[in-house]
Amino acid sequence: MLNQLRNIFGKRFTTNNTILERHGKDEAYHPVAPPDGVVFPETTEEIREIVILCSDNSIPMVPFGVGTSLEGGIGALSGGICIDFAKMKNILEINQLDMDCKVQAGVTRKELEGKLRDTGLFFPVDPGADATIGGMAATSASGTNAVRYGTMRNNVMGLTVVMANGEIIKTGGRARKSSAGYDLTRLFVGSEGTLGIISEITLKLYGNPPTISAAVCQFDNLENAVNSVIDSLLSGVPLARIELLDEVQMQACINFSKLHEFNPKPTLFFEFHGSDTEVIEQTKTIQDIMKEYGGSKFEWKNLPEERNRLWKARHNAYYASLSLKPGCLAWSSDVCVPITELANCIIESKEKLISMNLLAPLVGHVGDGNFHLLYLIDPDDANQLKKAKDHNKWMVEKAIELGGTCTGEHGIGYGKAEFLAKEAGSSIKFMKNIKNSFDPKGLLNPGKIFL
Amino acid sequence: MLNQLRNIFGKRFTTNNTILERHGKDEAYHPVAPPDGVVFPETTEEIREIVILCSDNSIPMVPFGVGTSLEGGIGALSGGICIDFAKMKNILEINQLDMDCKVQAGVTRKELEGKLRDTGLFFPVDPGADATIGGMAATSASGTNAVRYGTMRNNVMGLTVVMANGEIIKTGGRARKSSAGYDLTRLFVGSEGTLGIISEITLKLYGNPPTISAAVCQFDNLENAVNSVIDSLLSGVPLARIELLDEVQMQACINFSKLHEFNPKPTLFFEFHGSDTEVIEQTKTIQDIMKEYGGSKFEWKNLPEERNRLWKARHNAYYASLSLKPGCLAWSSDVCVPITELANCIIESKEKLISMNLLAPLVGHVGDGNFHLLYLIDPDDANQLKKAKDHNKWMVEKAIELGGTCTGEHGIGYGKAEFLAKEAGSSIKFMKNIKNSFDPKGLLNPGKIFL
Repeated sequence: MLNQLRNIFGKRFTTNNTILERHGKDEAYHPVAPPDGVVFPETTEEIREIVILCSDNSIPMVPFGVGTSLEGGIGALSGGICIDFAKMKNILEINQLDMDCKVQAGVTRKELEGKLRDTGLFFPVDPGADATIGGMAATSASGTNAVRYGTMRNNVMGLTVVMANGEIIKTGGRARKSSAGYDLTRLFVGSEGTLGIISEITLKLYGNPPTISAAVCQFDNLENAVNSVIDSLLSGVPLARIELLDEVQMQACINFSKLHEFNPKPTLFFEFHGSDTEVIEQTKTIQDIMKEYGGSKFEWKNLPEERNRLWKARHNAYYASLSLKPGCLAWSSDVCVPITELANCIIESKEKLISMNLLAPLVGHVGDGNFHLLYLIDPDDANQLKKAKDHNKWMVEKAIELGGTCTGEHGIGYGKAEFLAKEAGSSIKFMKNIKNSFDPKGLLNPGKIFL
Repeated sequence: MLNQLRNIFGKRFTTNNTILERHGKDEAYHPVAPPDGVVFPETTEEIREIVILCSDNSIPMVPFGVGTSLEGGIGALSGGICIDFAKMKNILEINQLDMDCKVQAGVTRKELEGKLRDTGLFFPVDPGADATIGGMAATSASGTNAVRYGTMRNNVMGLTVVMANGEIIKTGGRARKSSAGYDLTRLFVGSEGTLGIISEITLKLYGNPPTISAAVCQFDNLENAVNSVIDSLLSGVPLARIELLDEVQMQACINFSKLHEFNPKPTLFFEFHGSDTEVIEQTKTIQDIMKEYGGSKFEWKNLPEERNRLWKARHNAYYASLSLKPGCLAWSSDVCVPITELANCIIESKEKLISMNLLAPLVGHVGDGNFHLLYLIDPDDANQLKKAKDHNKWMVEKAIELGGTCTGEHGIGYGKAEFLAKEAGSSIKFMKNIKNSFDPKGLLNPGKIFL
């Protein structure tokens, strides 16, 4: 079987150990689980060939973008073939007037951004990492501006998928809406490679806003920072981004990204999109709300280079956190709760961190009720990873109890399969029914999503 | 079996012929297909009892809201029990600060609107008819303001569903986003009662915009009216509504709704939501675009009573059309295409109407690329219904060929099963796999969606 792949794909198939190891590891704490071989297809047809070979030989298949997943989704838990999308980077269509495009699954977010630069359009979903569009679709990723533009589920219009039996199917299309049968598109988005292998994606695009303005507001008190968000959302201002950093994360960013104009306090980063007049009005409304909650005067970041510096610092929060505890591992949690439960959930989670003697800076996509603790773990101290896992378990169960979810945007992988079982309750049986009917041999990314 | 239902539900179960007939007929041309009995449950638990009884006796079940569906979705094609939601009208929760609510499936759109009146919030999905929220979810309905607020798929956060085996499951929840496993919520939305019976729905709500403004713009030329929409969308103005009425529909509305200030010409109805300043700016931008395309000066409808008169006329387009040909039947088509194909698709469809000697006023949710022809058919002329079906078939196939869909918002029922098969291609097999795994006996709304 490996020889067959070598014959077909030549140098685009490898069993080199270093490469296998790199393909068995995500960006979190999960141990390496390398595949038996990595293949680099260039087309949907080639994926089909791989799938038929694997299926005939009952070999597991694991799709791989760039390895930025966080819940173990790419680990080859039962070995098998890793399908790496590094050579599927074609932008297949950009339909400027219809504001949509079609890409191969290996195109990364920044590569797409580059291609769109001269079109006046942009693709808004931004998980921070330069993930592939395929990986983002498979995980139902979102990020800082989901509060305005939605998640991958809202922005994927259609898919080409290679099914476990080698059939190539197309879902959705280019119509802006449809009620034509079951919504397979949104079923595959977030299915983490367990129902089929996504090879091409049609995406919604948006017109570049004429004016973009960013601002920073600091608080003495975390609760006020979070609760100001409720009023901001109720005001109807279409916030493009509203990001929380707690005092620990701010300290890390001040050091790492030289944000010396700020204090290590609970902080909100804002971005406003619209026409000049709209942005002026939006910022006025939000500033007034922040004032009521004891927020500082806005520190503006309006020039593109200032704005980029701010968001680069936000995107580098992970690396900034690592610098708080040199040599440590970092592991990002991810829960999402109804907005009125957010302050309480964050405050209790932080109190528990202190009582457990854990260090974990916090960032939050607070407009969605979503936040991440970045557990900083000494790799030589097994007890610390265990404590972080205990804290995470407690926090996830609390989020579910509050009507929230065990994962806002990182997916299940195998790191959260236990929590999904709890959250989904009896509905998980029907998820498994779908899995079994699409992939009866259980060869597509086995060991993921379900316990 | 009927006796068992009578014993359990007493007067809330009936086999009265008039009632059976009324439950076997939607608002379109489909012949009456009455069930054998109609039952009126009050709770999810009661639905479970009905489902178990039906399942044990292999009796088909058809859920029923208020019967405003258009593609035959409510016909009891194999007889069986109709589950009418008329007694499931409780608003279970309104969470004002979280901007969400939970309702029983029998609550209608206007009933919810009434309950929300004093909260400062509204639910935007508005298919025109006063449909139940359950029916709207099952059909993935949308309507005039989907261009800004999305369809049911975007606005249903969670569901309670009674499965074919009587299990009660909950999907989704109150978190604003989640990547926790397969998206069952969006799978049930649009599944038309074929995968499970939706009994409760959690919905996103929105803050009432401080300012609402409506305007009307008329054109000498349909192509210009449609193409002006492309520029309007590219401008980034968050249009709340942009509705097209062709010259035939405008004539009908002028007569029926006494819109005597307008001419029977291709016309766009607009609605703008925002702050005062935003609305002023939005309308200025759009007026400038309309002028470029030869549109008339805006006729403003800003006072609430004027605005209501305008939208009531739009919602009454169906009745206005009927008045063009007294005694006729009306049947609404529903296709949706990429916006750049819309003008061409509409113009060819209208030319074909003329060549076939058919009368069919046109309304369109043009911001989404979605439009409806309302075929007016003499009930005594079988040839006319046949011609309308031929025209519709031609138009649907054209829409699919253009990358669009056979239904933007009316669903498949059994009227469009043939077209879904064509649109979905090989993916339909996997839709059927889901159906078979959820409802192995095929008792849930049989004969719908699939040929």
